[in-house]
Amino acid sequence: MIDLSLLPDGGLTWLDASGPASHLVLSTRIRLARNLAPHPYALRATLGDREGILTDVQAAARETVSLRKAHLFRVDRLPLEDRQLLHERHLVSKELAGLGDPAVVRPGAALLVQDRVGVMLNEEDHLRLQGFRSGFDLDAAYQQVDRVDSELGQRLPFAFHPEFGYLTSCPTNVGTGLRASVLIHLPGLVLTKEISKVLQGLAQVGLTFRGLYGEGSEVVGNFFQLSNQTTLGKSERELLDHLGKMVRQVIEYEEQARQVLLRDVPTIIEDKVWRAYGLLRHARTLSFEETMNLLSGVRLGVGLGLVDQVGLYALNKLLVHTQPAHLAQHEGVGATDPELNVRRARFVRALLEDEAGRRGATP
Amino acid sequence: MIDLSLLPDGGLTWLDASGPASHLVLSTRIRLARNLAPHPYALRATLGDREGILTDVQAAARETVSLRKAHLFRVDRLPLEDRQLLHERHLVSKELAGLGDPAVVRPGAALLVQDRVGVMLNEEDHLRLQGFRSGFDLDAAYQQVDRVDSELGQRLPFAFHPEFGYLTSCPTNVGTGLRASVLIHLPGLVLTKEISKVLQGLAQVGLTFRGLYGEGSEVVGNFFQLSNQTTLGKSERELLDHLGKMVRQVIEYEEQARQVLLRDVPTIIEDKVWRAYGLLRHARTLSFEETMNLLSGVRLGVGLGLVDQVGLYALNKLLVHTQPAHLAQHEGVGATDPELNVRRARFVRALLEDEAGRRGATP
Repeated sequence: MIDLSLLPDGGLTWLDASGPASHLVLSTRIRLARNLAPHPYALRATLGDREGILTDVQAAARETVSLRKAHLFRVDRLPLEDRQLLHERHLVSKELAGLGDPAVVRPGAALLVQDRVGVMLNEEDHLRLQGFRSGFDLDAAYQQVDRVDSELGQRLPFAFHPEFGYLTSCPTNVGTGLRASVLIHLPGLVLTKEISKVLQGLAQVGLTFRGLYGEGSEVVGNFFQLSNQTTLGKSERELLDHLGKMVRQVIEYEEQARQVLLRDVPTIIEDKVWRAYGLLRHARTLSFEETMNLLSGVRLGVGLGLVDQVGLYALNKLLVHTQPAHLAQHEGVGATDPELNVRRARFVRALLEDEAGRRGATP
Repeated sequence: MIDLSLLPDGGLTWLDASGPASHLVLSTRIRLARNLAPHPYALRATLGDREGILTDVQAAARETVSLRKAHLFRVDRLPLEDRQLLHERHLVSKELAGLGDPAVVRPGAALLVQDRVGVMLNEEDHLRLQGFRSGFDLDAAYQQVDRVDSELGQRLPFAFHPEFGYLTSCPTNVGTGLRASVLIHLPGLVLTKEISKVLQGLAQVGLTFRGLYGEGSEVVGNFFQLSNQTTLGKSERELLDHLGKMVRQVIEYEEQARQVLLRDVPTIIEDKVWRAYGLLRHARTLSFEETMNLLSGVRLGVGLGLVDQVGLYALNKLLVHTQPAHLAQHEGVGATDPELNVRRARFVRALLEDEAGRRGATP
């Protein structure tokens, strides 16, 4: 079993709701795709190449500040549960975790982590550097990952073309190799049915959206990952400024939508919020998907000041710890445990009861 | 506005869950149809006849013990809200309350009440005597109404045929004129899908079922009124013995169904029960129908010993007082108040919170 304290968000720092706009934005994540010039791209890399990449990167990492104390997870040697766990933490992609289709773990698949930065190794690109922050904080997330990039770049021969920029396995990542993702909660826009208009607008300005778990994952609980689509032809600064501007706009739309709901259908909103809370407080079996949807309702209530029985940090913790692999680890059972939904409901009840008691709120 | 303390169940004695099998049976009600020989049946009665009936019965009632202190409600002179209120208390039929189709209040429609007995006047029959008891108690209910019948029968010329028995407006009531109804909660049989089999069986032995509000009313919240179909050719004793035997059988089936559910799908049942409780505790708007369904879930939980935050009496009270006319009176608004569902949710929350606090149960 993975020691959770080794994870960069082991203390869940990026979920403590301390960052900017935490009532709407759960976290900001930036990744940089990098490849080592001497080795072929992942699709054509031999086993020897893949091990060589691991050796080279580890050696370089030991000489940096950002990754000096990093822990290496050999994802290719981890049992399924642990790979799921890392994926649920957003530290490794579905593919690197061997949870894609086909569900194969690539040889040499690994993760290097320290504090709030991580490096996926032998993913689609040789290296995918990631930086995480609480709330909406593109600059801080970029500074973190930029430092790792500089430190490693001084010691490793990153594939770079003077005209195109960083070279990557997939052409869409060529250039800066940067993808910035903002995990944002947009129930207001969903309830007012304005969300598709907003998402279409984002697509027109080069942004894309996904569900909680990256490419191809469904949107549940009104949680959206907004990110830039391409990286070619723009500087890192330009990409971040553009995404930042657009996300601020989305935040404004969401705030407006909430005010409209509170003004026009306050009862429906209050009812929705409190029913969600009531079900989380009392249900005896909860699927993860239903939990997400109910947490979405309660989170809206907290954002609107309707609910004070629970804080954002607790809701964020629930979102992470009710995921199948996290819950299974907490309960000391396998991820296919038939009682997992019952355990989830018990876990949620206990946390919410404790939280309500701690906050001295009446139910 | 009607003074609720004048109602025979003003103190809700028949809902205090003190009677036999109260965990399943809410109440027992027996009515006797009687007509005054000198007057034509209701359909052909003139205004003069109808007033004459009122005068005659009132005069006789004053000389009895059962109805000496009875209060007379001139239903035909009551506003809509009050007529609804009496109907919600099961004291007057939909027709007498002028809530049928067409919704007309018949001249002379009246109700005479004292303690746990009531007499509808100028309904389909000139008199419909009713006795109410908590739980499953046919004998006690019959004793009550039988006493009224004897006392009035000594003073009024009831239409009686030596061969057919009591004569009534509708042939199905000829004979004893007796209809005994048991209001029973059968969620176990509904959940195990055995209910239709049971109801078919009851039909074969001359029993019928209806929803909470008598003939033609839908079954909601798994509350069924079981009663005898015809009265001709059998004595009161035989009718009651037969119904009693059948209801005891239904109770046994329901108990068995509950044990099967607890054995085979305990989680589903617990979840259902607690979700119902959670919604009642937290919802901000509740229709009466949803309230009934949720109360049904909680009632099942109380019966199974899963829930101790609320007692049967409180659930019975909720069932009565969340009805539109009752709620409107409690809140001092009209029955068409647009906020009635919001008021209902607030009323339910307050009562359940109070009840949970009183019982010292943790939510």
